[in-house]
Amino acid sequence: MAVYTEVTDEDLAIFLATYDLGAVLSCKGIAEGVENSNYLLHTEAGYFILTLYEKRVNETDLPFFLGLMEHLAERGITCPQPVKNRQGEALGRLCERPAVIVTFLDGMSVKRPDPKHCAMVGEGLALLHRAGEGFAITRRNALSIDGWGPLARASEARADEVLPGLAVTIAEELAWLQARWPQDLPRGVIHADLFPDNVFFLTGKLSGVIDFYFACNDTLAYDIAICLNCWCFEQNGSFNITKGMGLINGYERVRKLSDAEIDALPVLARGAALRFMLTRLYDWLNVPPGALVKPKDPLEYVRKLRFHQHVTSARDYGLLR
Amino acid sequence: MAVYTEVTDEDLAIFLATYDLGAVLSCKGIAEGVENSNYLLHTEAGYFILTLYEKRVNETDLPFFLGLMEHLAERGITCPQPVKNRQGEALGRLCERPAVIVTFLDGMSVKRPDPKHCAMVGEGLALLHRAGEGFAITRRNALSIDGWGPLARASEARADEVLPGLAVTIAEELAWLQARWPQDLPRGVIHADLFPDNVFFLTGKLSGVIDFYFACNDTLAYDIAICLNCWCFEQNGSFNITKGMGLINGYERVRKLSDAEIDALPVLARGAALRFMLTRLYDWLNVPPGALVKPKDPLEYVRKLRFHQHVTSARDYGLLR
Repeated sequence: MAVYTEVTDEDLAIFLATYDLGAVLSCKGIAEGVENSNYLLHTEAGYFILTLYEKRVNETDLPFFLGLMEHLAERGITCPQPVKNRQGEALGRLCERPAVIVTFLDGMSVKRPDPKHCAMVGEGLALLHRAGEGFAITRRNALSIDGWGPLARASEARADEVLPGLAVTIAEELAWLQARWPQDLPRGVIHADLFPDNVFFLTGKLSGVIDFYFACNDTLAYDIAICLNCWCFEQNGSFNITKGMGLINGYERVRKLSDAEIDALPVLARGAALRFMLTRLYDWLNVPPGALVKPKDPLEYVRKLRFHQHVTSARDYGLLR
Repeated sequence: MAVYTEVTDEDLAIFLATYDLGAVLSCKGIAEGVENSNYLLHTEAGYFILTLYEKRVNETDLPFFLGLMEHLAERGITCPQPVKNRQGEALGRLCERPAVIVTFLDGMSVKRPDPKHCAMVGEGLALLHRAGEGFAITRRNALSIDGWGPLARASEARADEVLPGLAVTIAEELAWLQARWPQDLPRGVIHADLFPDNVFFLTGKLSGVIDFYFACNDTLAYDIAICLNCWCFEQNGSFNITKGMGLINGYERVRKLSDAEIDALPVLARGAALRFMLTRLYDWLNVPPGALVKPKDPLEYVRKLRFHQHVTSARDYGLLR
């Protein structure tokens, strides 16, 4: 949860005066997102989300994120839409931070996904990949394999505080992945953070996707590997193959995976586990004073990594071929 | 800010099924209140606030709080209204906690109140006091002078960690107040926590009052003393007599203060400063592990107390008689 920047009623009124949304009726900080400050904004024109981008978001990436949300919506994906001010601009400034207003999206995220949710997410992910085709702006994935080395080194000295031997585990895994990371798989725009928090359901159907602030151009199958990690494990740490089957089959209903993509899934899943372990580890070791965010447990992803290390083929994830 | 209890989509659907509010469309934790978990709930029937009462709220007090909100609304005060379930009950249970749904109130709280806001709050406070008349349930103020001794003792050993000499300051102030605390002033239902956070404005008018979870039966003028503390000081710590004048005059437009109430204001203001200093000090020294709440600075109220200690009469607060 995150509300980092406190927006005063006066600053907000000045900001809103640049939009055609009428007067502010209410504005409440919401416990959503960990990188930005988010507010639920009620104006005479309706309900919106106001986002202030905090330090960790690179301002030059914002045209990619905002443009992508528009591109995807034009192609049938339900996601928040940036609202433009009277100058026709989506990106403004509020409290000395880049700020946008996006449309409010109804929907509930699921805390305990079942196999049906996984199937809908798999299908939704493939639809997202398809809808992303033709998007003109590109963004490199700063948190792909090239970024993990620096990230690992930043936590190396203190990793064993979290788990004895963790620094060695990370170094060995990184070396293993660097020798095997697939380079020639189909690429496109990936969400790169499609955790259950970021997928909404209504009346038993996937109703929308939010939080595109890690989206980038990368290997499409890596996005599936991320989802295998965050949708298909039980809370007790075990992998649920029925959920994995749902996810992969759901994806393939829209977009068939090539043999090379299927072969690469175990490696990609190990990489995805390492990526989330590394960012969580960094955050765990670097909680800023006065933080209002509870860091997430890196050990969850150490356990997931260990599972993937014993996977021999995509069949272990539920693939039927 | 506070979201202590995470409500799953499943638990929420079961809870909502006991109400006539249609299906859940969205539910977001909001950064409001520090004692409870609050969610902005969107259902097919509209927008509501869902509150889960955490440990610090005594369940036996809830009928007082909920009944008071209804009593006040029937008498013209705009405040959240408890929504009743199909059994006609306002109080339910969710995630093993007492839970209520109240109506959503538009409005913005002001971060930097001006004298006009203070005048509106003074008037609003008097209207609240008048509207509270005849409310059948009573609740003792656990945080009045009888409660300050135990509260002071709970922090005594570590108070000087926050400010050298603070333990002695507290003990001396408490003894001074115990010798002078007024006993025979007009009593009634007081809000007891009417901080700027808890008052909404729209189009330049006071539009509503929220958070009745400290309300109780106590000396009416003590509520004015609380407001002098939280509405009339500048961020640099100085008392703004124009704001004080606005507050007191605003109050007296609705309810005239007796000479005894006026004479007691300086003592009551010292008590109010001590009360908020003591609860903030306790919270400051007892931040629970993993807390998502940033404790408020007790020193702000040490400074306010020092101001009140030099006040000689209510004229120093802006009273013109």
